[in-house]
Amino acid sequence: MDIMANTLLAAGASPAMLHTLQELQDFTPHIHALCINIGTLSPDWLPSMKSAAQTAAQLGKPWVLDPVAVFASEFRLRACLELLGLRPTVVRGNASEVIALANASTGIGKGVDSIHESTDAVDAAKSLARASGAVVAVSGAVDIITDGQQVIGVHNGVAMMQKITATGCAVTALIAAFIAVDPSHPLEATASALSVFGVAGEMGMEFARGPASLRMHLIDALHGLDQAAILSRVKITSIE
Amino acid sequence: MDIMANTLLAAGASPAMLHTLQELQDFTPHIHALCINIGTLSPDWLPSMKSAAQTAAQLGKPWVLDPVAVFASEFRLRACLELLGLRPTVVRGNASEVIALANASTGIGKGVDSIHESTDAVDAAKSLARASGAVVAVSGAVDIITDGQQVIGVHNGVAMMQKITATGCAVTALIAAFIAVDPSHPLEATASALSVFGVAGEMGMEFARGPASLRMHLIDALHGLDQAAILSRVKITSIE
Amino acid sequence: MDIMANTLLAAGASPAMLHTLQELQDFTPHIHALCINIGTLSPDWLPSMKSAAQTAAQLGKPWVLDPVAVFASEFRLRACLELLGLRPTVVRGNASEVIALANASTGIGKGVDSIHESTDAVDAAKSLARASGAVVAVSGAVDIITDGQQVIGVHNGVAMMQKITATGCAVTALIAAFIAVDPSHPLEATASALSVFGVAGEMGMEFARGPASLRMHLIDALHGLDQAAILSRVKITSIE
Repeated sequence: MDIMANTLLAAGASPAMLHTLQELQDFTPHIHALCINIGTLSPDWLPSMKSAAQTAAQLGKPWVLDPVAVFASEFRLRACLELLGLRPTVVRGNASEVIALANASTGIGKGVDSIHESTDAVDAAKSLARASGAVVAVSGAVDIITDGQQVIGVHNGVAMMQKITATGCAVTALIAAFIAVDPSHPLEATASALSVFGVAGEMGMEFARGPASLRMHLIDALHGLDQAAILSRVKITSIE
Repeated sequence: MDIMANTLLAAGASPAMLHTLQELQDFTPHIHALCINIGTLSPDWLPSMKSAAQTAAQLGKPWVLDPVAVFASEFRLRACLELLGLRPTVVRGNASEVIALANASTGIGKGVDSIHESTDAVDAAKSLARASGAVVAVSGAVDIITDGQQVIGVHNGVAMMQKITATGCAVTALIAAFIAVDPSHPLEATASALSVFGVAGEMGMEFARGPASLRMHLIDALHGLDQAAILSRVKITSIE
Repeated sequence: MDIMANTLLAAGASPAMLHTLQELQDFTPHIHALCINIGTLSPDWLPSMKSAAQTAAQLGKPWVLDPVAVFASEFRLRACLELLGLRPTVVRGNASEVIALANASTGIGKGVDSIHESTDAVDAAKSLARASGAVVAVSGAVDIITDGQQVIGVHNGVAMMQKITATGCAVTALIAAFIAVDPSHPLEATASALSVFGVAGEMGMEFARGPASLRMHLIDALHGLDQAAILSRVKITSIE
């Protein structure tokens, strides 16, 4: 939650972290976008997640699902499938997460027992996007974003970002901030958020001596980003 | 919790974070001050908060309430009003939080739907202080501290501190450490804590490139503070 | 959890933080080692902790117990004694924690009301190791590691590490990573983990201006550690 909140603040957004069922009815109408992250999923939190997603959907607010380690347990997989049924605007995960979720939601029972590259997950991402109606993003050396038809690649970021805990969670939160600003273009907003976060990582890497200083410099860079840095560094390509 | 604990350690205090009802009876007698923060409030935690506050009050230990986002839900507001009834020594929030709490506790039903300056909250802070018996502190460009009669202003800190998550929570924890040392002067202890935290922010800002490096340098500066730095930088004035 | 995960990632390990009973049966078979930390213990988490420890023991996976503030409440002490009965491979705490746990598990009722040096805890650590069958490590200016017979001292680290929250928790997690790699030598693996973490602290201290920058530089140093740095800096001695 710490790096997610600091990423959002650095990017100019206003984060609020809630997990109590009793207050979601009051609070959800005030949000511009919702991010649901199942990182430290507990049975208590799942009803809150479902209620928030339902309220967001009813109010026409965009929402983003991060299916953290969905392959790790039956409990986590079932929770994600229930949330997927509430029609997220965007789903972002790594290749193993997206493949596991695509297999489960499309009924193709392939085991998830290895570490995948994002490019291995293009077909799974397209299937998942078509089955769920969500834009699906797969983080990796190249980030893949698809709405089931178009496939976009984002070629920003540095490898060491994977050595910082919750960078995936942070970029999912940033996607929520971007679709809050441009809810009618979730494909473009998602690609832009992934690219901008990657650019901040590249700029942070110039000053970093390791993963902990990269974390700090990445957030500083995100806060200081200007149009010139973005225009010169963003690399988004059409893949299919 | 991370930045709160690190702030307290840097300042020479000994933090312990507990939220389990079963152990509060054993542990509360050993504390010098209690800090209750409703940031990620859950129905499970509220009985623990009330029990800790009651025990602290019975034992004559000072305690501080941080009514995080009290305006965000009926659940949060009701929880804060119950805690307020257990007579906190100090309440610290931002202007919107203090105005919401003052309106609710004094029965004046004004909606909270905008972002307020701390100076907008002087009357609300005084009303809340009189109604609750607590010293009330309002964080902002100028921090306002009042016991319902006297009003003090603290003119330290830098704007970028608002771009770091939980700096408000951290300074509330620091107030608890300061009233632990000087429980008979909660007004002065609160103003001092806010000023010292602001001074650390000013000193940290000299080395910072953005909010993440400011967070680091602020805590380093707090740890290294000496009397000379404090005497030359502290700006506390009488407002009313 | 943040500094634990970042420490493990910096050291090349793959952390996963779970606390939900429903998924431990699915997930525990995939781990190489388990770390149970009672830092923010709640009644909900205790059954998960016991289940994970039982499953790990049944599967022959090593596991490490961190009895955080075991002396702080009857609830915490009872939880630790139950976990101790599930035969952890290693127990790591500070001197007060190890003395409290040794007294309780061996039935010697001595009160814990002062701050102890690690060297005060040698006898307690040996008793606890013999009674529990675990390797016991006591963090301090000199870290003490014993299997009940042999006693090893680790002379690395810097005092300022105690001013960073959860460095104890982080080194316990690192011990779990080390025994995952060498499960048949828990005494040596534990001493090595404590020494390597201390070396990273020493190297980080060269660039640090205070506890927050030490935290960052420590993790960067851990990530960048090479054989030469380790061989020239590690100080492990035989004490008994």
